[in-house]
Amino acid sequence: MADSPNCDLKSLSPLQLFEKVTEQGEKVRALKAGKAPKDEIDAAVRMLLSLKLSYKTTTGQDYQAGLPPKDHTLINNGTANEEDEDLVDPWNVQTSNAKGVDYDKLIVRFGSSKIDTDLINRIERATGQKPHRFLRRGIFFSHRDMDQILHAYENKKPFYLYTGRGPSSQAMHVGHLIPFLFTKWLQEAFDVPLVIQLTDDEKYLWKDMTTEKAYEYAKENARDIIACGFDVNKTFIFSDLDYLGSSTGFYKNILKVQKHVTFNQVKGIFGFTDSDCIGKISFPAIQAAPSFSSSFPQIFNGKENIQCLIPCAIDQDPYFRMTRDVAPRIGYPKPALLHSVFFPALQGAQTKMSASDVNSSVFLTDTPKQIKTKINKHAFSGGRDTIEEHRKYGGNCDVDVSFMYLTFFLEDDDKLEQLKQAYTSGELLTGELKKVLIETLQPLIAAHQERRKQVTDEVVKQFMTPRKLAFEF
Amino acid sequence: MADSPNCDLKSLSPLQLFEKVTEQGEKVRALKAGKAPKDEIDAAVRMLLSLKLSYKTTTGQDYQAGLPPKDHTLINNGTANEEDEDLVDPWNVQTSNAKGVDYDKLIVRFGSSKIDTDLINRIERATGQKPHRFLRRGIFFSHRDMDQILHAYENKKPFYLYTGRGPSSQAMHVGHLIPFLFTKWLQEAFDVPLVIQLTDDEKYLWKDMTTEKAYEYAKENARDIIACGFDVNKTFIFSDLDYLGSSTGFYKNILKVQKHVTFNQVKGIFGFTDSDCIGKISFPAIQAAPSFSSSFPQIFNGKENIQCLIPCAIDQDPYFRMTRDVAPRIGYPKPALLHSVFFPALQGAQTKMSASDVNSSVFLTDTPKQIKTKINKHAFSGGRDTIEEHRKYGGNCDVDVSFMYLTFFLEDDDKLEQLKQAYTSGELLTGELKKVLIETLQPLIAAHQERRKQVTDEVVKQFMTPRKLAFEF
Repeated sequence: MADSPNCDLKSLSPLQLFEKVTEQGEKVRALKAGKAPKDEIDAAVRMLLSLKLSYKTTTGQDYQAGLPPKDHTLINNGTANEEDEDLVDPWNVQTSNAKGVDYDKLIVRFGSSKIDTDLINRIERATGQKPHRFLRRGIFFSHRDMDQILHAYENKKPFYLYTGRGPSSQAMHVGHLIPFLFTKWLQEAFDVPLVIQLTDDEKYLWKDMTTEKAYEYAKENARDIIACGFDVNKTFIFSDLDYLGSSTGFYKNILKVQKHVTFNQVKGIFGFTDSDCIGKISFPAIQAAPSFSSSFPQIFNGKENIQCLIPCAIDQDPYFRMTRDVAPRIGYPKPALLHSVFFPALQGAQTKMSASDVNSSVFLTDTPKQIKTKINKHAFSGGRDTIEEHRKYGGNCDVDVSFMYLTFFLEDDDKLEQLKQAYTSGELLTGELKKVLIETLQPLIAAHQERRKQVTDEVVKQFMTPRKLAFEF
Repeated sequence: MADSPNCDLKSLSPLQLFEKVTEQGEKVRALKAGKAPKDEIDAAVRMLLSLKLSYKTTTGQDYQAGLPPKDHTLINNGTANEEDEDLVDPWNVQTSNAKGVDYDKLIVRFGSSKIDTDLINRIERATGQKPHRFLRRGIFFSHRDMDQILHAYENKKPFYLYTGRGPSSQAMHVGHLIPFLFTKWLQEAFDVPLVIQLTDDEKYLWKDMTTEKAYEYAKENARDIIACGFDVNKTFIFSDLDYLGSSTGFYKNILKVQKHVTFNQVKGIFGFTDSDCIGKISFPAIQAAPSFSSSFPQIFNGKENIQCLIPCAIDQDPYFRMTRDVAPRIGYPKPALLHSVFFPALQGAQTKMSASDVNSSVFLTDTPKQIKTKINKHAFSGGRDTIEEHRKYGGNCDVDVSFMYLTFFLEDDDKLEQLKQAYTSGELLTGELKKVLIETLQPLIAAHQERRKQVTDEVVKQFMTPRKLAFEF
């Protein structure tokens, strides 16, 4: 940074200022660690203080490391910025509420629709299947045009499923399974084809990572996804780095989206700036294109009008709002969406789990012992400080991470309800609740690991080869 | 441009016209300084050029900033206004000089090197071939790192050629042949592989055109390019829409470039704005990527370090300045370049020919009769108004388009020199010079049409199929 920072600071947004303070903090730490000359450290500290002051003046808030300015909402449909607005975009999920993000507010802000009992009942009638626990428990809570998908399905019109993952590391944690477990259920219930995008190109652009590494992670992640039990005859998994270079249909659709979205638009939707690389700026089109059936001529026989249903976490919605805006302008149907809540970190529901913090998550590679230790040591408890108080006042399921995890993974509704009552009444202690979670997750993960072992290179290759699936279009 | 400035210009005195030109020059400078929208600047520049033309018609003198028309004295204490800057970028070529763009100035502005006699002699020594007339006559006039290519070649290190074309319409004109005729000579003289990019994706993004149409034009243009006589065993022609979806090597390199170029940079180089679509913004990476041999694993056996030489018109240089800036940062050698002058429109050297104005060009599909009529009717003449004056004062080869075309297409140096002397001395009349041009172009184009007929769909397919070429790497 130049000598006097303040002159240009006024033009910075709160988020840019936040980043500047964070950067300067890191610089100070590095100087101290490197035992730099005292006057150099002092100068850097003075600069840091001055930046923090600018931050406070601009935002009215004290700088807090790791906590971007509250009223910074990248996703904003023009509604007022309330003090307690959660930050939700494809790269950040932040809330100050221990219960997690306020999802009802998010539905209003994003302009999506709530998945209500009527819709769940209609899914049950259409498929003849008991709705998945993620539907029964509001884990998939919001949608766009799911009624259209059902209407078409009831009239024997086909659709397909599209979901994906950014392969940022080799290791996946249990939270990463949520969209895949649900997608598998949807695929079986509706008997429809499924495409799964691994955005290794995105990870190359955003991270300090080679294309080779990103592609390697994509293949490793494919192994975990396949281990969820997808049917190879009905599922196509693809890495962008691989498939973009093997399908002219896919590239044509990317190009069509890129022609119909301006820099102004992606700036508004994703918060890109002039200093971002042109790869990031054009990437949203690559996540959009699999929403159109002509991206997969080998599956849909060249048909352009097969509708798409996308199950994903709500933070991916900006990509698909953009996609739905473009679709009619390039002659394609809008994709429908089913949105899930975030999977909480062990430390609490304020943020989603992160693959880069090993203690924020239960990983799919963890041993039974590691699972036990992590949950006992890190899972944020809604229990009281002492056994006496707990017995007297009871625990709080709304903020207890072990209970939250059980709502995701314990299939038995009655058992879950019993646990809730017993914990809330104080009958059940935190340690006992954690034990139930441990005993739920241990066999689940062991079974996953067992299935993963069966996924040979050959099987991965099969899933990732562009080919016809077992459907006629 | 506004409706027509010329209608009221006729009533103006030379001095008033002089003032109008000066005023407009100042307006252009102000717009440029204020970073006004590109189309606004372009419109102002066009108006300036048109005013300068009126000035010349009226006064018989070239407009010179600060120098009022003779016989008129204007008191001007300002310094000389150098508004003689030519406008040259991939979408515009504008100059007020009837001789065409000032190429020596362009070399300084672009920071390239002049192709001098030493370099031409070295090419002759290295290849054992008489230098192509485009080299002998300064039509390829500027280069970047050609000495490195020669040094490597002299030490038996291989390189490859890369050139291209934007298929904006079915019809190509003789000007479009320049890079291809020269590239063919280079390929034969050095015996090296050649890749030719047809940017149908670019045309889809920039024009009101479907991807299907752009691809169709690409294949039609390939036919004309092949008719120049390229060897199918040493040449790979590709449409982006086609090849990007058939080569993971190409997409990986595009992505690498996209990661290392920011929006700020393409804004500076190409003048993009926030209202441009993200496809345009990221496109420069697609023109950059063929400069790297790993974009063609099937040709170079996966080798990443084969150097590339790009013959192209100077207006394409911005793409490759960007490419050369990125190359070392992604571990690749910088491509070398050979730049050509522009091919003048029939109406004069102020602009390059345009495929959209049928009378600005001699097209490869024109009949002998059409060629004759076009040249006789439209080719701007450097001759005098009457035969008597012409005999007395002689013609001006510097602005005579027929003579310029002959420097491009008449192989015989002695004959060309004779024509120049005869025309300059007044011995040769405009009609006679035009006749020589007509008789040069007619058989040339007839032969091209004959060769084009031999280019079957099968042959086009062969050239456009990714495959090994007749070289070992």
